[in-house]
Amino acid sequence: MERIEAQRRIRELSDNILAQVSDGENPFIKIPIRGSSNVVWNEDQGLLSLGDKQSKRYFINVAHAKKFMQTLLVAAFSNQLLDQDMHTSLREAFYSLKHTLKGSKENTFEEQSESNATFVDLEVALDILRDELHINADRRGVAAGEVVIEDRGDTIDWSKLGSGGWAIPGNVEDIEFKNVTADYMLVVEKNATFDRLHEDKFWKKHNCVLIGTQGQAARGIRRLIHQLNGKFKLPVYAFTDSDPYGWYIYSVIKIGSMNLAHVSSKLGTPQTKFLGLTISDIYKYELENAIIKAKDVDLKRAHDLLNYPWFKHKEWESEIKMMIKKKVKAEQKALAQKHLKFVSEEYLPEKIENKDFLP
Amino acid sequence: MERIEAQRRIRELSDNILAQVSDGENPFIKIPIRGSSNVVWNEDQGLLSLGDKQSKRYFINVAHAKKFMQTLLVAAFSNQLLDQDMHTSLREAFYSLKHTLKGSKENTFEEQSESNATFVDLEVALDILRDELHINADRRGVAAGEVVIEDRGDTIDWSKLGSGGWAIPGNVEDIEFKNVTADYMLVVEKNATFDRLHEDKFWKKHNCVLIGTQGQAARGIRRLIHQLNGKFKLPVYAFTDSDPYGWYIYSVIKIGSMNLAHVSSKLGTPQTKFLGLTISDIYKYELENAIIKAKDVDLKRAHDLLNYPWFKHKEWESEIKMMIKKKVKAEQKALAQKHLKFVSEEYLPEKIENKDFLP
Repeated sequence: MERIEAQRRIRELSDNILAQVSDGENPFIKIPIRGSSNVVWNEDQGLLSLGDKQSKRYFINVAHAKKFMQTLLVAAFSNQLLDQDMHTSLREAFYSLKHTLKGSKENTFEEQSESNATFVDLEVALDILRDELHINADRRGVAAGEVVIEDRGDTIDWSKLGSGGWAIPGNVEDIEFKNVTADYMLVVEKNATFDRLHEDKFWKKHNCVLIGTQGQAARGIRRLIHQLNGKFKLPVYAFTDSDPYGWYIYSVIKIGSMNLAHVSSKLGTPQTKFLGLTISDIYKYELENAIIKAKDVDLKRAHDLLNYPWFKHKEWESEIKMMIKKKVKAEQKALAQKHLKFVSEEYLPEKIENKDFLP
Repeated sequence: MERIEAQRRIRELSDNILAQVSDGENPFIKIPIRGSSNVVWNEDQGLLSLGDKQSKRYFINVAHAKKFMQTLLVAAFSNQLLDQDMHTSLREAFYSLKHTLKGSKENTFEEQSESNATFVDLEVALDILRDELHINADRRGVAAGEVVIEDRGDTIDWSKLGSGGWAIPGNVEDIEFKNVTADYMLVVEKNATFDRLHEDKFWKKHNCVLIGTQGQAARGIRRLIHQLNGKFKLPVYAFTDSDPYGWYIYSVIKIGSMNLAHVSSKLGTPQTKFLGLTISDIYKYELENAIIKAKDVDLKRAHDLLNYPWFKHKEWESEIKMMIKKKVKAEQKALAQKHLKFVSEEYLPEKIENKDFLP
């Protein structure tokens, strides 16, 4: 979204309030409800999303007045960032916004949790990403492969960055994709596995992009995957550990999360397929010597997954139940048991060739 | 170090053992002791280092035999990595090395802690970095600024990587510095502060390199700082939160750590100066509204710091005692209280101009 459009939406919000004031009304802001009571599984889109419930935040209301004031402060702050074409983090925004109101002992914000929640309110109220309001998420993740981008005037070829790779920033809104010749994206949970594939030039041999998430995929990474998939129809294959946490990482990339259900349509990528590691893989590839005993917390999480509609596919149910029955899990790195290049020379090419994915 | 030299050292170790066997001796390997009993503060070098204590690991000794076998397995594994010019992680090395000895129920390694410790033994015994044995550390960190490197055949200009930056790999041994025009390195603890400086093109305006550590500096980052300082005499300024954890991050970059005392001379950079944030800064720059109350664990850590010889400077003692007395701390991001660009336009330039550093 262009800056000018983000500013137009902020202006519209404030114009509405001004109009209410001139009409002698008690001014209010409409904010869709974000609690779990209003999160729905949108099967058609394959995404978690918000339902229709809305709340109104009134200025003249003892329970609302402070939040109303905070919402306008946050809107003004975002507008200023956009004016100056600057970005910042939630934490710095909190420090910037926190002050004592003149002639009182009242602080604008006491805790960062208040300003964080208010930015999300604004995100929902304006149907805009906080990234588009120039509030960056924490950065994490690395990219390498057959993509050329333009960013801050630099042309960056992700295939020419040595052993390092491109450090994915927290905010990817301003990135322009100049040349995307990759055939697909391979999203990798663990650094060491990313490094193995990177050293073996997997992305070159198989004409793809590697995205290392370093655990749970940060917002910038999810948005990047979403954009590359949406604009270039690049298939996305997720490769995680064989455990409920790895599968959860996959599901967040694919369908979004409860917490961020209001932005799933901009962060989620429903076309994502799960490549591995599956529990079946452990046995198919004879990795028994590298099996880890599942802990109670893993088993509890596995039971949780069985209840989620987006895991209600017979292939997933069979995998999750096998995990629960055998009480086992395994890491991506377990493939090193065969030999170090097994993952790049046999496991992944075979899986991709046979389209051996879970939905 | 060239691969050939690393392999020569492994060969020397095994040749010695073979010679002992042909001489009918009980073969042993000499390994310097790494425990805290053998870690010394080397004031002349400004580094933690190992003392002279050594142990001998014998083959024919019930207590040593398994570790002796493990040491040779690890040496052979490293030699193979070097032969094939491949790198791997400690975890994958463990999976590769773990197997059941033929005709027995004995495993080579039961837990990764055993193989990890053995790699460190080898590191110490051969006076070589495990990175030089092609065992990578976990990757973390990002670089941006006036440095051009060559890595895996790619020429990478750290000043042309957009909002992202160069993702620092876990192993930086093979990186060649092609053009280092920066005047100094600014090492930054927090991502958001790195991003602020990066967006403000601080590295361009002040002709420097920014290194974002994302918390405690990973091994690859420390080695990179060490190399840039050693080869190009680039001064290093550390910029962390104003709390004992931030100051500890600084001290590890500067003098090394107890755990890795055996490699301090290759990872530490004694010339590093502490730029901020100091407790005095909080008051000097009127950040009182952004102060955080120190927790008990902070105060305990602060007392610990007072006991370390490398913090025995009157400037440090005064800062640490002020922190303990006032029971306060603050984040780098607190500088946003003044205004968002205060850190890049006023705080840092003023500090650097006045050489307002702690030793």
